[in-house]
Amino acid sequence: MLTGGPSTTESVNKVPFLADVAVVGAGPIGLAIAWRCALRGLRVVVHDPAPGSGASAVAAGMLSPVAEAYFGERHLTGLLLASAARWPAFADELTEASGADLGYRTEGTLMVGLTADDLAEARRLWAYQQGLGLPVTPLRPTELRDQEPALAPRVRGGALAPTDHQVDPRLLVPALRTAAQRAGAVLVPQAVGHLSEVDARVTVVTAGCGAAALTGLPVRPVKGQILRLRAPGGAAPGFRHVIRGYADGEQVYVVPRADGEVVLGATVEERSDTTVTAGAVLRLLRAGVDLLPELAEYDLVETVAGLRPGTPDNAPILGPLPDRPDVLAATGHHRHGIVLTPVTADLITDLVTTGMADPLLTPFDPGRFVAAAPDPSSAAGPGADGSGEKGGGRVAGPGPDGSAGHGTGWRAAPGAADVGGADRTTEEDRWS
Amino acid sequence: MLTGGPSTTESVNKVPFLADVAVVGAGPIGLAIAWRCALRGLRVVVHDPAPGSGASAVAAGMLSPVAEAYFGERHLTGLLLASAARWPAFADELTEASGADLGYRTEGTLMVGLTADDLAEARRLWAYQQGLGLPVTPLRPTELRDQEPALAPRVRGGALAPTDHQVDPRLLVPALRTAAQRAGAVLVPQAVGHLSEVDARVTVVTAGCGAAALTGLPVRPVKGQILRLRAPGGAAPGFRHVIRGYADGEQVYVVPRADGEVVLGATVEERSDTTVTAGAVLRLLRAGVDLLPELAEYDLVETVAGLRPGTPDNAPILGPLPDRPDVLAATGHHRHGIVLTPVTADLITDLVTTGMADPLLTPFDPGRFVAAAPDPSSAAGPGADGSGEKGGGRVAGPGPDGSAGHGTGWRAAPGAADVGGADRTTEEDRWS
Repeated sequence: MLTGGPSTTESVNKVPFLADVAVVGAGPIGLAIAWRCALRGLRVVVHDPAPGSGASAVAAGMLSPVAEAYFGERHLTGLLLASAARWPAFADELTEASGADLGYRTEGTLMVGLTADDLAEARRLWAYQQGLGLPVTPLRPTELRDQEPALAPRVRGGALAPTDHQVDPRLLVPALRTAAQRAGAVLVPQAVGHLSEVDARVTVVTAGCGAAALTGLPVRPVKGQILRLRAPGGAAPGFRHVIRGYADGEQVYVVPRADGEVVLGATVEERSDTTVTAGAVLRLLRAGVDLLPELAEYDLVETVAGLRPGTPDNAPILGPLPDRPDVLAATGHHRHGIVLTPVTADLITDLVTTGMADPLLTPFDPGRFVAAAPDPSSAAGPGADGSGEKGGGRVAGPGPDGSAGHGTGWRAAPGAADVGGADRTTEEDRWS
Repeated sequence: MLTGGPSTTESVNKVPFLADVAVVGAGPIGLAIAWRCALRGLRVVVHDPAPGSGASAVAAGMLSPVAEAYFGERHLTGLLLASAARWPAFADELTEASGADLGYRTEGTLMVGLTADDLAEARRLWAYQQGLGLPVTPLRPTELRDQEPALAPRVRGGALAPTDHQVDPRLLVPALRTAAQRAGAVLVPQAVGHLSEVDARVTVVTAGCGAAALTGLPVRPVKGQILRLRAPGGAAPGFRHVIRGYADGEQVYVVPRADGEVVLGATVEERSDTTVTAGAVLRLLRAGVDLLPELAEYDLVETVAGLRPGTPDNAPILGPLPDRPDVLAATGHHRHGIVLTPVTADLITDLVTTGMADPLLTPFDPGRFVAAAPDPSSAAGPGADGSGEKGGGRVAGPGPDGSAGHGTGWRAAPGAADVGGADRTTEEDRWS
C-alpha cells in the first residue's frame, strides 16, 4: 500500500496528504504502530490529547497467552501466542530504541487454587490448556511451595506457566512514545472527533473504547477495578512469579514488580463509569490476602478503575473498515492489549506498507460484525486487507472462533454459540 | 489570670507581651480556645503552619460519650459527658458566629453485634454503661430493624444510644477558624519549634502529637486508618444513625453524613507512620460490609491514616505545665478531640482569664505524669491551675482513674492497674 519516502503520498491529480499514516489514539497499540511505521520511513502523525491515559494506564501488563487460553477462543489464543513469542525481541528493540526500562520480567506465572473447589475449577482449565499443547506444568504442593514460599498454606494446588511473563504498562507507554518520536512520528495532542478531521493517506484507529464513536465498530467499555500495593520499607515483594488464582470463587492476579509494586486485580464489570467501589476493593483484597498473606502488610497505594475496549466476541478488531479501505482498525483488545502490542503493530504496519494482510489477521477482520447488507449498494468496495475476502460487502464470514454469523447489522456475539464461548469467557476476563 | 483589654498585658517594669494568649496548634481544640479567648477581649495569636491538618482532618467526628464509656475510665467519661452536653449550644453559637454548617446531626448511635460472640461482648459493655446511668436502650431484633432497616439480617442484636451525636470535623475546623478570626484572633502560619519563640503572657499548647517535643509531656502518636465512602449517584446513605459495631471480633464505626459521605473506621495502631495498609482496609471494609451490606455498592473515595495524640492513661492533658505556670497544655485528646472541644475550650479559657481551674480539670492535670522529683530544687513553683494542687513538685497525685503513681520521671501508664484499665481500653480505642 505505502512505501517509504515523501513522494508516495502524492498521487496524480490529488492534493497530497499531510501524512502517510495518521494514528488516532496513543495507547501502546497506537504508539507501537506509529513507531513501526516511522521506522519504515513513513510520515506518521499520532493524535491523542492524553497519550497513555486509557486502559494501559490501569493494566497490569501480564503477557499470559497460556494462562489466558480459555475455552472457545482458539483463534485468539493463537494470536496471543504469536504476540508473546515476539515480546522478547520487541522488548530488546524497544529498550534499545528508547533507552528506557520496561519492567519486562520472565519469572513465569503460577496458577493456583485456594480451596478444593477452586482447584477443581482451575484444573479443568489447565487440562484444556495442556490439551492445546501449551506449557502448563501441574505442581505438587511441595513443589508449589518451593516455587513460591509466600503462598498461603491453605492454597491447595497450582501449576506453572513458565512462558507467561510480564511488563509494566506504565513504563511501556513512555518508552513507546520516545521510540516513536525518535523514529520521526509526530504527536499532536488533540482529540479527533471525526475521521474527516484526519489528513492522511491511511488512518489507523487505535482509540480503544473511543473507536466506537469514530468507526461505528461494536467496541464497548468493560470496567476493571485494580489495586496497587507496595511492599513495606522499599523492599521487593516476597514473591517473584505472577500469581493467578481462584480464591473462594474469586479470580485475581497478583503481579510483583522489581521496585516493590504489586498489582492486584481485577474486576470485570459491564459498566462505563470509573468509580472505585468498596465491594470491589474488598473482594480483591480478600482474595489477594487469602492467597498471599503478606499482602496484608503492604501499603495500599492506589485504587483505580479503567475501561477495557471490549468486543462482542472478546477478540480484537484488526483490519480495514468494510466501507473505508483507507481506515484500519486496531482496537477491541479488551484484556489483551499489552500482550498483543507487538503482533498488532507488526501486522498492521505490514498491512499499511504492503497492502497484504497476514493470515493471522483473518479471524479478526472488522467485517465479521457486518451481516448481509439490506441494500447491497451501501456496501463498500473490496477491502484492503489482501486476505482475499471482501470487507464491507461480505456476508458474515467466520468469526475468531469459527462461528457463522446471522442477523443484520452488527452481530452481537459471534462466539456465543461456542462451547464455553463468550458467556463463560466474560466471567473469566481479566486485565492482561 | 487575664482579663480583657490591652493594658492587662503590661505589668510594671516589664516589656509588654505581643499577645495575651498564644495558641500553638490550630486544630479544633486550639481554634476553639482562640475563639473563646478572643471573645473575652484577649489578644490572641494562633501559630500553625497548616491549620486543621492533624488528627481532626482524619477524624470521624462522633460525639459519643455513651458508646465510648469504657471500663475503668470514669473520670474521662465524666468529661466526655460534660462536653457532649455543651455541644448543642456550642454548635448553635459556632454556626451563628461562622455562618457555616457543621454537619451536626442528632439521630443518635446504634451499637450492634454481628455474631453471638460479638453480641455477648457488646452486652457486657452496655451493661457497664447502663450501670453508670447512661442512656443505653437494648433493642429487640425487630426494633433494631425498625430503627435501621439497612443493617444486615445477620446482625444479632443492638442497643440505642440516642444522645450520641456527630459533627463533621472537616466542616468544624474551618468554621472555628472563621469564628476565631472574626472574634479578632490572628493566625500566624508558622511552626513553633520551641516555646521560647512565643511572645505571649500565656501560651496554650494545643499541638496534638507535637506537644511532646514542645513540652516533654508523654504524648505519643497512635495511628488510625479510616475510609471515606460515598453513596452512589449522589444519594444520601441508606441509614441515618451512627453505627458502631463488633463484627467477627473487629470493631468498626460507620458514620453517615447528609451529603452522602460515609466514614468507616478505624484501626488503632502503636505506629507513627501514616501509610495505608492493605490489611487494614480489608478489615475495615469486611466489617463494614458485614454490618451494612449496601456499603459494598458505595464508592470508595478516600483511604487515609492519621495520628491521634495518645497519652499513657488515654485521657487528655489539661492544665499548666508543672514547671511553667504560664504554659497550659490542652492536648492528648486521643480519640476524643472532637467531642471534647467545647469543654476544653471553655475550661481552658476560664483558666486563662480567671486563674481558676474548674474541678472537672483536676484529674487531667499534667502533673499526674510527674513522679517525686529526685532533686526537690528542680521542681518548679506552684501551678496556676487554682486546683489547690502544686504542679511540678507534687508527688504523683491521683490520675484520671484514681490510680496512684510510682517511679520517677514521666509515669508510663497510671491507669494500668485499674480493672479493665489501660490495656483493655487501648484495644477498644477508636477515632471519635
